[in-house]
Amino acid sequence: MNKTIFRKYIQALAVLGASLSVSVAAATPDETLLSEAQRHFKPLPKDLSSMEFPVTPKQVALGRALFFDPRPSLDGTVSCAKCHQPALYGTDSLSRSIGVKDKLNPRNAPTVLNAALQASQHWHGDRTDVEDQAKKALLGAASFGQPDFIKSMAQLEAIPGYQAMFEQAFPGDSQPVNPDNWAKAIGAYERTLLNASPFDDFLKGDTEAISPAAKAGLRRFIDTGCVACHGGVGIGGSLLKKFGLTEDYWKSTGSQIIDKGRFDVTHNEADLYVFKVPGLRNVAMTPPYFHDGSVASLNDAVGIMAKVQLGKTLSHEEIASIVSFLNTLTGALPDNFATAPVLPASGFRPTN
Amino acid sequence: MNKTIFRKYIQALAVLGASLSVSVAAATPDETLLSEAQRHFKPLPKDLSSMEFPVTPKQVALGRALFFDPRPSLDGTVSCAKCHQPALYGTDSLSRSIGVKDKLNPRNAPTVLNAALQASQHWHGDRTDVEDQAKKALLGAASFGQPDFIKSMAQLEAIPGYQAMFEQAFPGDSQPVNPDNWAKAIGAYERTLLNASPFDDFLKGDTEAISPAAKAGLRRFIDTGCVACHGGVGIGGSLLKKFGLTEDYWKSTGSQIIDKGRFDVTHNEADLYVFKVPGLRNVAMTPPYFHDGSVASLNDAVGIMAKVQLGKTLSHEEIASIVSFLNTLTGALPDNFATAPVLPASGFRPTN
Repeated sequence: MNKTIFRKYIQALAVLGASLSVSVAAATPDETLLSEAQRHFKPLPKDLSSMEFPVTPKQVALGRALFFDPRPSLDGTVSCAKCHQPALYGTDSLSRSIGVKDKLNPRNAPTVLNAALQASQHWHGDRTDVEDQAKKALLGAASFGQPDFIKSMAQLEAIPGYQAMFEQAFPGDSQPVNPDNWAKAIGAYERTLLNASPFDDFLKGDTEAISPAAKAGLRRFIDTGCVACHGGVGIGGSLLKKFGLTEDYWKSTGSQIIDKGRFDVTHNEADLYVFKVPGLRNVAMTPPYFHDGSVASLNDAVGIMAKVQLGKTLSHEEIASIVSFLNTLTGALPDNFATAPVLPASGFRPTN
Repeated sequence: MNKTIFRKYIQALAVLGASLSVSVAAATPDETLLSEAQRHFKPLPKDLSSMEFPVTPKQVALGRALFFDPRPSLDGTVSCAKCHQPALYGTDSLSRSIGVKDKLNPRNAPTVLNAALQASQHWHGDRTDVEDQAKKALLGAASFGQPDFIKSMAQLEAIPGYQAMFEQAFPGDSQPVNPDNWAKAIGAYERTLLNASPFDDFLKGDTEAISPAAKAGLRRFIDTGCVACHGGVGIGGSLLKKFGLTEDYWKSTGSQIIDKGRFDVTHNEADLYVFKVPGLRNVAMTPPYFHDGSVASLNDAVGIMAKVQLGKTLSHEEIASIVSFLNTLTGALPDNFATAPVLPASGFRPTN
């Protein structure tokens, strides 16, 4: 029996210990915390390639170029990287993003890091996956702003170099430069944008990977009830939930506009003020917070969540403790995100 | 006498040879070309730190962060990197750049790579250096769009982390977060954004560093007369010259707006249609061309320049030959430009 299996065995016994009065060496508090954390969370996989979404290196390379290229947008100013900037951990630091022609998005741009982990995309959960999000962004009035896919693809095709990149990424397609392949390539790239953090090392068994203060914060995060929604591999991102379970969210966030959430998609009363629960990986690096970026400070955001979701008023110390844990969710930027690709030079000149 | 000195001696003698009838081994055509090129051009220095503009690593690190940070702009959307994107070789690929609030710049954004080499900045030459350019961009209506420096600096100061970075970059300053230090830091960073190319290796004596076609193009570049303005370390960038010496530029470029050039700065008739001669380093990677980005193809741009500056009509083959040479001016992206810095997370939330 190796050490890990033995530890797990001991931990399992320890959990049973109190009721069964089995006489075993007690697990250390760290081991107990680890064991509990492992029931709530999962460490990051290497990437999110799957049978359904196979990721080939050529697709990833194409998707990476497309991600950084503003030329397929209406006026040549908007790339995915405009709202998802590497230097800002895949965000734009704005409350609500601004797309072509100074058009304001209704909601905040979440980080693209680990976004592919989520069960759905967008705050209203109305994009099925990263591919769907990428495709629809082309036509978003406050995103790429294109009137149709044809114009967007024509702008791409006018750039020498892309034709061959699409052909290599999608061999056998008679017309590879098309919006579905655009979406697949960007999705393939985003499925590689995962960044493990010290908390992943903890979850894998290294109980010294995070500080005692962070471990206390993790304990509090679990005990306070945050983990009910913010669990799994994404530390959230898998559920849609009403924002403001115990009181109206806007009274605490100070939101100027009352966003009805998923109700605006389904027109179902049950979806009133329902939003996607965001994943918390890298949360310390991605202010401002909430669907409308109405709160600048992570401490404030934690306090508001406890209040409006759980009906609990946390002290400054309790909030700071949870934030100590949240800081362990920050990983290094993936190299293929931090470093810009060199785009094929343009034969095309956007009109302006 | 070592080999290099011997070669130089031979080359010098070869130049004198015809008139003096000195009997020496003739220089090879490559050696003659190299020798001639060395009279017109200079290889890149490592960086542009100088007594007047000392570059410290802390200033460069601060300047690099500031370069990528959109938060000091009016609406939080414009950083230096918006118009000078790494993926587009320090340009935005637009004919004319777009700043805050969808405001159109009057002219094309040149690459920031090797920009510090130039004798002045901006197409009208009305920015003395990269520091001056960076500072004035804060107030440019179609750049950062700030009404004054105070607001811009207040937005910077609201970001935890910058105070310490400014203090370390400018020790002893009682109020280090100020527009002059903003400019100095970004200038310090830009003075490191030099990228040597295969042509630099050639200039340093490696005659095999560029292809025979490129060498033929270099010969043609010199003999056609391009080198009269596009010489020195920047392959241009040191002079102000009238665009359209032998005929009006707009008849060839198809420019929709007739830009009067430096005349708009000095109101001196002699400055009518006078623009800064751009440096040609990385020119193949930085379309579209000219002050208004009116021409998308480098081949077209070369043909137009020969026509309107030198009164020469080049054949397609002659143009292609010169472009073969121009392609040797492309260097790799500097690492500290290709890779985004991680910016201090915001406590500040831009209003939008």
